[in-house]
Amino acid sequence: MTSDVEELDRPADSTSSSDDYVDLTPEYGREVLDALGEDDHSRASELISELHFADIADLLGWASSNQREQLVDLIRPDFDPELLTELDDELREEVISRLGTDVVAEAISELDSDDVVEVIEDFDKEEQRELLGALSDIERARVEEALSYPEYTAGRIMQRELVAIPDYWSVGQTIDFLRSAKNLPEDFYDIIIVDPRYSPVGIVPLSRVIRTNRPVLVRDVMESDEMRTVVVTEEQENVAHLFRQRDLISAPVVDDSGRLVGVITVDDVVDVIDEEYEEDMMRLAGVGEEDDLSSAILDTTRSRFTWLLINLGTAIMASMVISAFENTIERLVALAVLMPIVASMGGNAGTQTLTVAVRAIATRELTSTNAWRVIRKEVAVCGLNGLAFAFLAGGVTWFWFEDGLLGSVIGVAMIINLLFAGLFGALIPLGLERAGIDPAVSSSVFLTTITDVVGFFAFLGLAALFLL
Amino acid sequence: MTSDVEELDRPADSTSSSDDYVDLTPEYGREVLDALGEDDHSRASELISELHFADIADLLGWASSNQREQLVDLIRPDFDPELLTELDDELREEVISRLGTDVVAEAISELDSDDVVEVIEDFDKEEQRELLGALSDIERARVEEALSYPEYTAGRIMQRELVAIPDYWSVGQTIDFLRSAKNLPEDFYDIIIVDPRYSPVGIVPLSRVIRTNRPVLVRDVMESDEMRTVVVTEEQENVAHLFRQRDLISAPVVDDSGRLVGVITVDDVVDVIDEEYEEDMMRLAGVGEEDDLSSAILDTTRSRFTWLLINLGTAIMASMVISAFENTIERLVALAVLMPIVASMGGNAGTQTLTVAVRAIATRELTSTNAWRVIRKEVAVCGLNGLAFAFLAGGVTWFWFEDGLLGSVIGVAMIINLLFAGLFGALIPLGLERAGIDPAVSSSVFLTTITDVVGFFAFLGLAALFLL
Repeated sequence: MTSDVEELDRPADSTSSSDDYVDLTPEYGREVLDALGEDDHSRASELISELHFADIADLLGWASSNQREQLVDLIRPDFDPELLTELDDELREEVISRLGTDVVAEAISELDSDDVVEVIEDFDKEEQRELLGALSDIERARVEEALSYPEYTAGRIMQRELVAIPDYWSVGQTIDFLRSAKNLPEDFYDIIIVDPRYSPVGIVPLSRVIRTNRPVLVRDVMESDEMRTVVVTEEQENVAHLFRQRDLISAPVVDDSGRLVGVITVDDVVDVIDEEYEEDMMRLAGVGEEDDLSSAILDTTRSRFTWLLINLGTAIMASMVISAFENTIERLVALAVLMPIVASMGGNAGTQTLTVAVRAIATRELTSTNAWRVIRKEVAVCGLNGLAFAFLAGGVTWFWFEDGLLGSVIGVAMIINLLFAGLFGALIPLGLERAGIDPAVSSSVFLTTITDVVGFFAFLGLAALFLL
Repeated sequence: MTSDVEELDRPADSTSSSDDYVDLTPEYGREVLDALGEDDHSRASELISELHFADIADLLGWASSNQREQLVDLIRPDFDPELLTELDDELREEVISRLGTDVVAEAISELDSDDVVEVIEDFDKEEQRELLGALSDIERARVEEALSYPEYTAGRIMQRELVAIPDYWSVGQTIDFLRSAKNLPEDFYDIIIVDPRYSPVGIVPLSRVIRTNRPVLVRDVMESDEMRTVVVTEEQENVAHLFRQRDLISAPVVDDSGRLVGVITVDDVVDVIDEEYEEDMMRLAGVGEEDDLSSAILDTTRSRFTWLLINLGTAIMASMVISAFENTIERLVALAVLMPIVASMGGNAGTQTLTVAVRAIATRELTSTNAWRVIRKEVAVCGLNGLAFAFLAGGVTWFWFEDGLLGSVIGVAMIINLLFAGLFGALIPLGLERAGIDPAVSSSVFLTTITDVVGFFAFLGLAALFLL
């Protein structure tokens, strides 16, 4: 593959290619969509031709499904296969089905194996076979092997195209090999050094190869301490952690017997980091990962329903606590007015602790080594804020209802609820983590159940004891 | 700088260097800290010497401040300067003050300019001068120039060490230059091609240089379309977006006149992505960015106080709404039991919408181009779930209080509140974004104020109208 020649040819292909691409601003996007609305397809085509494929992918996301169909028709003739790797899962399926299997099968044959896997992994076996039709036997076998690894593991994000050489080669031999080799990846940053069993023993950054004199052996310039190999079944989350921790640009991937099977590069890891964060953030709010802006209304409604149903359950539990104090409230209706304050402050203080803990578990700043110290600290922080807000809420209550005892009751309830908030804000994610459950996934519902129940119970219970 | 030689020398330096580093597990961490607890410093030293500097940084985070002091004393003799770049701000200050200015000044002189900036940017002018003492005049000038750019801009994260060559050079000339040049960065991945005004005109991946024959001119193999330059004052958030969008490994940084001043590499961008996400997640929960696990209890308490104070204000507003219906509640205390359900469901449904919107604004999937369509969709989704939960909550109420009319009132209130939740869950972050405020920073407090007030008002108001 001679990408140099491709590069040289390009300026003659189209009028805009010697210039930079245009940036896709919201205004530019609206211009394209307006042109579609006015059926001015030649204007729309012209505007689109100025855009980088990654920006066209964004534009497809901004469009309505009707506009999207028109856009796909416009890009079909000049379609850049890498565009498919930039789309969210649902959007990609839609675009692929509109493009047609033939166009996509052709496009796929130009992608690296990790990109092919990304594009086709959500299709069923039958469709996958169709889409892989244009691939050579070797490439198809590579993709099918990658698909045999579980989702979210190193095997799915690695690419099979890599540069590996034996450790007895000299730098000169290596350079000559690179100049003449045919099946190299388009761009690469490190060369992997393997032993006779094809196990990686070191890695050499290209900048070091290029700066070393030809007679030097690669084994004498390779990094072996700094090299980290990844097992093909490792979870992608752990791979991302490793890359961040060690500031890696690429890492060799090995199978169970230690044989080199692929390489993961940092740009794939950036995607994983995005995914993992998005997952944490969405899970904390009870939103499914498949909840894209472009999902259909009914799908989105359904995916959010479950979380709301669980919350209805916990809200009813809290209501049952209140209901136990109906007589108390009947005799002092100010309690009904004030009780949401205690519950809400507990929920907020607990969420602060919870978020810090979920985040720290994800970055491994919080582990069993320092768990107890963190729990003690969080309880202390919430307790101190509880004390401060006991005076504030108590003072407001005293002033509002002209009842010092009522003020004291809300104050004490506040302290109790915030202590529980701190304790469980830290304990719940740690407990879930220990049980092997993602701490982001259900901690907030557990937490607000506790702060609602404790908040109502402490406030109304103390009121029943001391005020009536 | 001959990193090859360093590499070659290393095996003789210490006994463990030909092996891989040991992984820092929580158990291993506890072993080190236990050894410290038993004053067995030689055992602790031995365990630490097996760890990569990035893992020692993690271990410092797990330790109590007392243990931290002991750890710093143990690592001082063999201290790897890069460790400083792996620490959180607060931890770094603590470690630096314990290490002592002399040790740190010495260490800093071994770092790249972007790392030096990261390490010293939080110190005051006086301390910075002291820490920069061991740097050469050129290096100090570089660091001081970087510090003159605002925080969170490209100028702060770029490195000044780069490889730039004129476009009329051949590949052979370039390789000879790289072999003989003295002041190159330790590792690099792309070579920047500049015109006579030192403006970048293209970029060549090293893998392409190495694979091209010596007589070919670099201008004939460089990428100019795919190259993206970053202006030095650009916000780091936009830089991160660009890298992700274009899958870049490095990008040249230019000043206002288009002159090349530095380069940003993807590993710096990974740190930015981490920071930006952490910021969004923390801000949504009302936690300050400076809220580290290792912060002092009083600092953490204070940093969380403000958010809780704002929430106390909004909780009191909600209470005032309830208070307007005191008579209604007095006559039908079931209302006090049920009203938190309506408010809580609105808060949860709104948070789902809010989180999706904040996230989509950050990834630029949601812009003014598709804002109205997204708002309509979110209102529809929340409205449909409102309808579903109207029946569910209404049914439960009917069954519980044997009152069909009360069930209808809670059902209608639920629909109203969820419609508002969807509308404002999307509108608030979009409005904040338009006003130039980070949508993550205060959206959730606005939102829950609205869902609480609307929830209580709709439920109690309807009850007052139809039930009494």
